[in-house]
Amino acid sequence: MNAPLPNQAIRKPIAAAMLESLKALFGDRLSLAEAVRDQHGRDESPYPPLPPDAVVFAHSTDEVAALVRLAVAHRVPLIPYGVGTSLEGHLLALEGGISVDLSQMNQVIAVNPEDLTVTVQAGVTRKQLNTEIRDTGLFFPIDPGADATIGGMAATRASGTNAVRYGTMRENVLALTVVTGEGKVVRTARRARKSSAGYDLTRLFVGSEGTLGIITEITLKLYPQPEAISAATCSFPTVEAAVRTTIETIQLGVPIARCELLDALTVKAVNARNGLGLPEMPMLLFEFHGSAAGVAEQAETVQAIAREHGAAAFEWASKPEDRSRLWEARHNAYFACLQLKPGCRSFTTDVCVPISRLAECITETISDTARSPLPAPILGHVGDGNFHCAILADPTRPDELEEAERLNGRIVARALAMDGTCTGEHGVGMHKMDFLRDEHGDDALELMARIKRSFDPQNILNPGKIVRV
Amino acid sequence: MNAPLPNQAIRKPIAAAMLESLKALFGDRLSLAEAVRDQHGRDESPYPPLPPDAVVFAHSTDEVAALVRLAVAHRVPLIPYGVGTSLEGHLLALEGGISVDLSQMNQVIAVNPEDLTVTVQAGVTRKQLNTEIRDTGLFFPIDPGADATIGGMAATRASGTNAVRYGTMRENVLALTVVTGEGKVVRTARRARKSSAGYDLTRLFVGSEGTLGIITEITLKLYPQPEAISAATCSFPTVEAAVRTTIETIQLGVPIARCELLDALTVKAVNARNGLGLPEMPMLLFEFHGSAAGVAEQAETVQAIAREHGAAAFEWASKPEDRSRLWEARHNAYFACLQLKPGCRSFTTDVCVPISRLAECITETISDTARSPLPAPILGHVGDGNFHCAILADPTRPDELEEAERLNGRIVARALAMDGTCTGEHGVGMHKMDFLRDEHGDDALELMARIKRSFDPQNILNPGKIVRV
Repeated sequence: MNAPLPNQAIRKPIAAAMLESLKALFGDRLSLAEAVRDQHGRDESPYPPLPPDAVVFAHSTDEVAALVRLAVAHRVPLIPYGVGTSLEGHLLALEGGISVDLSQMNQVIAVNPEDLTVTVQAGVTRKQLNTEIRDTGLFFPIDPGADATIGGMAATRASGTNAVRYGTMRENVLALTVVTGEGKVVRTARRARKSSAGYDLTRLFVGSEGTLGIITEITLKLYPQPEAISAATCSFPTVEAAVRTTIETIQLGVPIARCELLDALTVKAVNARNGLGLPEMPMLLFEFHGSAAGVAEQAETVQAIAREHGAAAFEWASKPEDRSRLWEARHNAYFACLQLKPGCRSFTTDVCVPISRLAECITETISDTARSPLPAPILGHVGDGNFHCAILADPTRPDELEEAERLNGRIVARALAMDGTCTGEHGVGMHKMDFLRDEHGDDALELMARIKRSFDPQNILNPGKIVRV
Repeated sequence: MNAPLPNQAIRKPIAAAMLESLKALFGDRLSLAEAVRDQHGRDESPYPPLPPDAVVFAHSTDEVAALVRLAVAHRVPLIPYGVGTSLEGHLLALEGGISVDLSQMNQVIAVNPEDLTVTVQAGVTRKQLNTEIRDTGLFFPIDPGADATIGGMAATRASGTNAVRYGTMRENVLALTVVTGEGKVVRTARRARKSSAGYDLTRLFVGSEGTLGIITEITLKLYPQPEAISAATCSFPTVEAAVRTTIETIQLGVPIARCELLDALTVKAVNARNGLGLPEMPMLLFEFHGSAAGVAEQAETVQAIAREHGAAAFEWASKPEDRSRLWEARHNAYFACLQLKPGCRSFTTDVCVPISRLAECITETISDTARSPLPAPILGHVGDGNFHCAILADPTRPDELEEAERLNGRIVARALAMDGTCTGEHGVGMHKMDFLRDEHGDDALELMARIKRSFDPQNILNPGKIVRV
């Protein structure tokens, strides 16, 4: 992945008049400092940074609306920013402009325990949210690993380890407050659990990556904290055996809460980083939620299926602290993988296929990447058919970057041929725009482009991401 | 509800050249017969029919695409038609044009049991689907009562009695094949269970009521048939007690499959129609799905909650035939209500509120309608906060029609004031266009209008429904 070329023809310094207006609006919450701009011009992708011309730290929806109106008047790009954990170059200032940092909009606005809903500002992170609502007996399950902001998770249609049971941001956002491309403030829906009232603006903004509007508030579904939780690991002779166990579990309707695959190479990396002695074979991590009796019943069913596929015995982690250690290791597996090759960066793929094709897709991917000089450990949300291959390349070596892109392209092509998607949960950003066309075709992309043009006629909302207009 | 005035300025007969092309395309599947046109110009709303100028019976997506290109060339409106069970005037030919009957596109195209997915043509009905897939051990849970087509259910974002556990069409459509306003064929998504690949075209077409494109194929999620099912009825001293039982059940995370409220007047109507002796008090109908042990545990929890709210004992229907009889009575409750006032038609409201406000909303509605000369029995999908009030009016009496609209308007205003929606599952059609504006505001409606204009530049797709352009 070479440095993307900023569009110099379009990029121009912010006009003095606009800078004055920005100062009036944001005071010392406007920053032109290089370090601040650099931090806001990157994400967790391997792209080198492309900093914006300025960063503002917004405190309210009205401020964001005033900013958009200003940006429209001066035709200056705006890039919404949470905590910078996106993975596909979403935050790079391709055409310059202003990064709109929403992390200080971090208030939980309203908890409605009887309705199992909460409304938060966009900058609230998922861990903060769960800490603040703990006493209600409810929790918000979506867990992409990183402690991302709820606004960023909505904007990228994020999901993660719990999606097999609780769904993704698509299913769990009830309503949004959005500042439109003309600086109007729109509430996309009411707080009812379902509605047939017109076009589904909520779902249109979820996953729009800041290109159609700026999300400033989000109403989410919450869930009762399960009465009982237990977690286990289990080793399998092959990836296929682990995936077949997953398929049968889901086919039987076992309401499993988490079902995560680590391939042998990932287990090895986790062992090395955490000083663990896990068998270096494909492994599933399970988590069961329910009543005490329900959890026991689920676990028994899954163990029987796993045994039929030649699995080793379950290793249980029933105490909260053991469970935390286990999921900490899972969430840090990405960092453990990076240490397999010091100095490297990861090109993290994100394909998702129908689960009937998953074993084949992962097995072919492993056999393909095994022939490559680059290590490519695999982590998967296999209950959803989604897996990540962390292709490890030295960013200073063009041959490795090229090889990483070659493998990435082959993995996406394989998933598309299996009726899968190029991205299960990371989004499109800059990096997957061509894959998006391969996946949907020209006519569907034209519909997307029409939406973009009609919502953002001046193309100032995170331009150069998702669709070209 | 007076007869809507057809827009005579716009309405014009189909040109001879177009008729020739239609004959060439559809042969004897083109009908100009008055009886056929009349049947296609009405739905289950109280509106008098407004027939289209012609009806075609489509057999393939390509035929529909050819039809749209023809309609664009001649600027003739197209109104997709399934089996005519919509409720808000969706099917009335306000500006004339052609009704596109999709009921003969009734093939189940592909069942993928390992993936828990099925792809069907738009004209497959939900009962047909469940009959055809029975042997797989899977089922499709969405049940709006009527044996609607899957295409129609997707187009109106339908739900019904099972939504509290399985969600609505919003959550259960994975992908669509859609003919666009220019006669292109677009597949909105792949068959993966989740995706972050660009704008969510699938959810945009779900609930678009034929105004943005014509849905011809649908890929749905399926679910394992539960190992055990049991159903029960239970009478409560007040609506409030029944609703509080529902709220606590959901707050505890009991995965109840159905939870339906009938008010005392509805129970009376059901007794009269079915010769039953149910206590004429507010009643909940429950259904539990799960393992045998799981179902027993759920039922025990709910019974304990109901007892605390002064409920009578549960009456169980564990045998499939008893269960069928029970749900048949529930589904026919609408027709039972119609018999409370012979010769009447029902103005069926469809508000949905956050469940914390539901008891208050229903209680105020009953006290309001009790002062009206019109009977207004209530049926509710109370687990979702959604209820229907069947306001019974004589369609030949202007004073009753006016009174029905007055009550309807008050019910919607009450729901909106409680952060609810004017329609939980019936859609907007013609009848709720003004309520839609009350609910979303001008700026959100402008976004909807932009989508409409950019997807259907000539306004030929079910014109005059959802948004004015």
